[in-house]
Amino acid sequence: MIRGTAPERRYAILAEGRFADRSAKTAHGLIRYGKDEVVCVMDSTLAGRRVADVLPDLGRDAPIVGMLEEALERSPTSVLVGLAPPGGRLPEEWMETLRVAAEAGLEIVSGLHQRLAPEFPGKPVWDVREPPEDISLFSGKGFEVGPKVALTVGTDSAIGKMTATLEIERAAREAGLSPEFVPTGQTGVVIAGWGICVDAVVSDFVAGASEQLMLEAASTSPDLILVEGQGSLGHPAYSGVTLGLMHGSCPDCLILCSADPHEEVFRDVPRPSPARMARLYEEVASLVKPAPVVAVSLNTRGLDEERARELIAAVSDETGLPAADPFRCSAAPILEAVLEASKSRAAGL
Amino acid sequence: MIRGTAPERRYAILAEGRFADRSAKTAHGLIRYGKDEVVCVMDSTLAGRRVADVLPDLGRDAPIVGMLEEALERSPTSVLVGLAPPGGRLPEEWMETLRVAAEAGLEIVSGLHQRLAPEFPGKPVWDVREPPEDISLFSGKGFEVGPKVALTVGTDSAIGKMTATLEIERAAREAGLSPEFVPTGQTGVVIAGWGICVDAVVSDFVAGASEQLMLEAASTSPDLILVEGQGSLGHPAYSGVTLGLMHGSCPDCLILCSADPHEEVFRDVPRPSPARMARLYEEVASLVKPAPVVAVSLNTRGLDEERARELIAAVSDETGLPAADPFRCSAAPILEAVLEASKSRAAGL
Repeated sequence: MIRGTAPERRYAILAEGRFADRSAKTAHGLIRYGKDEVVCVMDSTLAGRRVADVLPDLGRDAPIVGMLEEALERSPTSVLVGLAPPGGRLPEEWMETLRVAAEAGLEIVSGLHQRLAPEFPGKPVWDVREPPEDISLFSGKGFEVGPKVALTVGTDSAIGKMTATLEIERAAREAGLSPEFVPTGQTGVVIAGWGICVDAVVSDFVAGASEQLMLEAASTSPDLILVEGQGSLGHPAYSGVTLGLMHGSCPDCLILCSADPHEEVFRDVPRPSPARMARLYEEVASLVKPAPVVAVSLNTRGLDEERARELIAAVSDETGLPAADPFRCSAAPILEAVLEASKSRAAGL
Repeated sequence: MIRGTAPERRYAILAEGRFADRSAKTAHGLIRYGKDEVVCVMDSTLAGRRVADVLPDLGRDAPIVGMLEEALERSPTSVLVGLAPPGGRLPEEWMETLRVAAEAGLEIVSGLHQRLAPEFPGKPVWDVREPPEDISLFSGKGFEVGPKVALTVGTDSAIGKMTATLEIERAAREAGLSPEFVPTGQTGVVIAGWGICVDAVVSDFVAGASEQLMLEAASTSPDLILVEGQGSLGHPAYSGVTLGLMHGSCPDCLILCSADPHEEVFRDVPRPSPARMARLYEEVASLVKPAPVVAVSLNTRGLDEERARELIAAVSDETGLPAADPFRCSAAPILEAVLEASKSRAAGL
């Protein structure tokens, strides 16, 4: 999906039985950060309640309904498949709901690995993970863009890179800047209405896809380009995606996303320390183009206020970098570090 | 293509007008390292000469013919498209040759990005770059294989990783061992008759594909598994493929492939020094599983004997590692370092 070609959507979100689960992260992301209207959520186990009661953190309200008929009364343009089904394939009841929705003229929007377009021939389907066909190899044009580019990287996957990127975007808007968010995963793409899921691209073309996204963002002449990171340099399943995106998007600086250091990345593979990862990301980036880590974004979900403050202070001490939880508090300190880095760079420091 | 399912082939190699070019590297690789018979090369500009006259370095002879008719007299089972056409798509004359070959019952074998199966419906076509459909995500099973796994990595792409891996395999056979070569690129796959071109795999599945290849190799209970590396950690276009392969194949040790340090990786991006790259590969590998760099394989093509010796000595000094050009001299010192590392590891050193 090319930037600027997205229609305005009015979403009904299908999250049957699991709207309150963390697995409904695409639904939650769209409600929290999306610019499109959300007319309702479909989850019969919560029917009659409201999003603001069930998940007040999302910061946006919508009714929760039990049946597609009730959803249709609210004139949606699109149905979002708002969570990944267990086992990977959609259950038949959901397919039936989607069939009725498609017959009623609604667009089906899905971020699943399973492509839905072949299931609804002749109907409008946006398979968010389907990459465009015209991706080129990395060209090096990305080295020459004007606006500063910041990329989020992580000490682990699923650690809050998208949230951090979107909160920094929000802080930049609040500071009167024109930032541009570059979506690289299914939730980010649904939120922004454009982008490429880089993990669904043939590996030889990941760097080219990342460069293309960044050049599209640059074409609107923003003050700042904020690229959503993927995976982690230390996650065995996803590190290739992480690095293709890092070299391909040609960042000027990096924001390291971290959380509880005592968890495992994968089986017995420990989560590396923020200081170690900051140094390693910088070294690997610098093989192609220098990009200092300028701040640490901490995900303190599940910690109480005091323990969150302690973790933030400890990581800031350890790394010598500004650290903040942009979701719990504010992304302003991280934004400031990004802008400061850009200034130093412009001044040749 | 699964290991052990490959038929025995008798190849006619199509390399019209460019058999002596470096771009014919799949043809050269098959002649030099392949176990399948090569009945002839088709190149009308060299017709009547022999491979051993034109490219004596390849170490295997075959007649060169000008016409498909002459090739067919030698009873090939397969035609290999032995070079990539300029512009990416096969010229119509080549397609016509392949059509006649297919009509004559020959299998078409191609390592091109352009898939040929759709062009020859109902005929046997092996599109070497087409990945299998059943690749899984990385599972971690690769952490538990018995035989030692060595992976070649590079200070640049196209620096001789496949050649080094195959020369080490040869040295291991000569030393009475049963090594298993794991092919990860189109030339390696044609040579071995099985494997996966990991750069043609959707990026989320590169680590899983690499793990699967290594597990297939392990299933034959070899003494040593030698994985062909791809790209370089410092090449902006291919680094994601490199890292997905490195973490996914779970190596116990790494062999760094290097060459003239004064070239560029990409535009103004310099080729990093072997010492820097050895340290960085080790650090990035160790995020998941420790894998020391145990030797440097140098590609001294184009240097005279004295300059080659100087480069090898300088790199060995700089890195503190054994260094050799396995093609010009012997891979024995590299093999020894790999086996030594395995022993130390087995002894818990």
